[in-house]
Amino acid sequence: MSVSKTVNDDYPTRNSDSFQVISRRDPIVYGNSLQLDVLDSDQVKFFEESGYLFFPNLFSTKEVSTLSDELERLSKNEELKKQEQFVLEPQSGEVRSIFEVHKNNNLFEKLSKDPRVVNVVRQLLGSDVYITQSRINRKPGFEGKEFYWHSDFETWHAEDGMPHMRAISCSISLTDNYEFNGPLMVIPGSHKQFISCAGKTPDNHYQVSLKRQEIGTPDKENLEKMVKQNSIDTAKGPAGSVIFFDCNLMHGSSGNITPYPRSNVFFVYNSIKNKLEDPFSASKPRPEYIASREPQVITPKSLEITI
Amino acid sequence: MSVSKTVNDDYPTRNSDSFQVISRRDPIVYGNSLQLDVLDSDQVKFFEESGYLFFPNLFSTKEVSTLSDELERLSKNEELKKQEQFVLEPQSGEVRSIFEVHKNNNLFEKLSKDPRVVNVVRQLLGSDVYITQSRINRKPGFEGKEFYWHSDFETWHAEDGMPHMRAISCSISLTDNYEFNGPLMVIPGSHKQFISCAGKTPDNHYQVSLKRQEIGTPDKENLEKMVKQNSIDTAKGPAGSVIFFDCNLMHGSSGNITPYPRSNVFFVYNSIKNKLEDPFSASKPRPEYIASREPQVITPKSLEITI
Repeated sequence: MSVSKTVNDDYPTRNSDSFQVISRRDPIVYGNSLQLDVLDSDQVKFFEESGYLFFPNLFSTKEVSTLSDELERLSKNEELKKQEQFVLEPQSGEVRSIFEVHKNNNLFEKLSKDPRVVNVVRQLLGSDVYITQSRINRKPGFEGKEFYWHSDFETWHAEDGMPHMRAISCSISLTDNYEFNGPLMVIPGSHKQFISCAGKTPDNHYQVSLKRQEIGTPDKENLEKMVKQNSIDTAKGPAGSVIFFDCNLMHGSSGNITPYPRSNVFFVYNSIKNKLEDPFSASKPRPEYIASREPQVITPKSLEITI
Repeated sequence: MSVSKTVNDDYPTRNSDSFQVISRRDPIVYGNSLQLDVLDSDQVKFFEESGYLFFPNLFSTKEVSTLSDELERLSKNEELKKQEQFVLEPQSGEVRSIFEVHKNNNLFEKLSKDPRVVNVVRQLLGSDVYITQSRINRKPGFEGKEFYWHSDFETWHAEDGMPHMRAISCSISLTDNYEFNGPLMVIPGSHKQFISCAGKTPDNHYQVSLKRQEIGTPDKENLEKMVKQNSIDTAKGPAGSVIFFDCNLMHGSSGNITPYPRSNVFFVYNSIKNKLEDPFSASKPRPEYIASREPQVITPKSLEITI
């Protein structure tokens, strides 16, 4: 039986056979109540208009190599690989993703608190934040699959009960992102409207949607309109580059047939004032390791990896 | 029964379980015996070193729109669509490719003889040329599939009996090629060696390989080596741009999840001194509309589409 909520839902989705455009009802940039200054006014304005910010080389070569070494060490630990947080390739048994790295690994926990990252988010969201999802994606060359366009908020709202658009994703690349190895693609400005999606959330949808999402992806007509307005931008840059993007920004990525691998660390920071509720369009919430319901407010602290 | 030839084969392939690197035994640029000057010495040198030449805006907006209109007219002709040269999408019945357009359509025949195109090839190959294959590829947005790395010559040698590397492909884009809608990717310098491929050509291989090629594609190890040397270049540019590339240049393309369509006209010009023989590694030649055995020497003549 579905226990979907019908009250106080600003962004109804997956409850009909049609797609609908709903204007964003939440701010994009919240008041800077913590009085931070990691971003200047041009950067804040760019985020407000475009929905993302890209910083090449935010982390040093030394930091990237320390993080990459740690990822390789984790990926080779046969005991760890038995945990549900470790997603393995069915055929090779290779580690493809590791969830909850901000909880189960000391180094990545430190990374998630680094002021270069977390203060960007705190300034834009105007409040303290906690992590609702973290994961490392580890993709070798030749076989990276495409990921179709989607707004993360659509899923987080429908399946995790995130009430408002007051969360920002942060992707830290551990490998070089070229135009040809499937970098993240974003549609600038698409965060200003919500595409209410057709269909209904299947039970345990996350078991398929994390590999290939269909329910919760927008229709071609609306995608075409959004791309016509502002085209597409790609997050290209050397390892150590970071992209921050609004929870409702439409994004996707092409497949990767090149020999260049792609690995990145992904943190979702949610405002402490935007705690998860019951799912708005799913029969039960996703597991804790995918969407945390135990808010732990982050105190910024430097990563401190030195040469 | 296989009638594969074993004599005079400079580039044996598909006759063992292993991949092998064979140094190119043919020139890349042949003597300019026709004394043409459409390319200057820097361009000739670039082609020799890199294996390709890219010309943005070689055709005008007016020419592109005339060619595109003709393609749309052909694609809507239900009688023509019954011909084997027309490859249709199984589900929608939409035209995806049209072969032999240099024979079955007046406008595209003229295009294939335009001096801006054919004289580039005649200068580099140092002889008169004819067309062994022509086709238009017509791909709408959202659903362009990836095409894995391959050398065309490997297939043309194995399946069509092209004896030597003395052919050049020319791709004329009818739509804008961005970095994100799956433009042609090439590995510069890869034309200097031949990757002899493992496996054996299945009967009627073209019926699957034109959609998704596996036999005749190189191994990851050699691809990685080639990319390490010279990385990857992509053919980005507005509609009307043209790329010429050596028959043995390793190339491929990523899928396209963007709304931007991709259409291009593709001509393969072969030297008249390099006529097709019996296949070197297949039981019978591919059909005439895919690999012509009736050489018709091209006399250059302007397309003459004016504003």
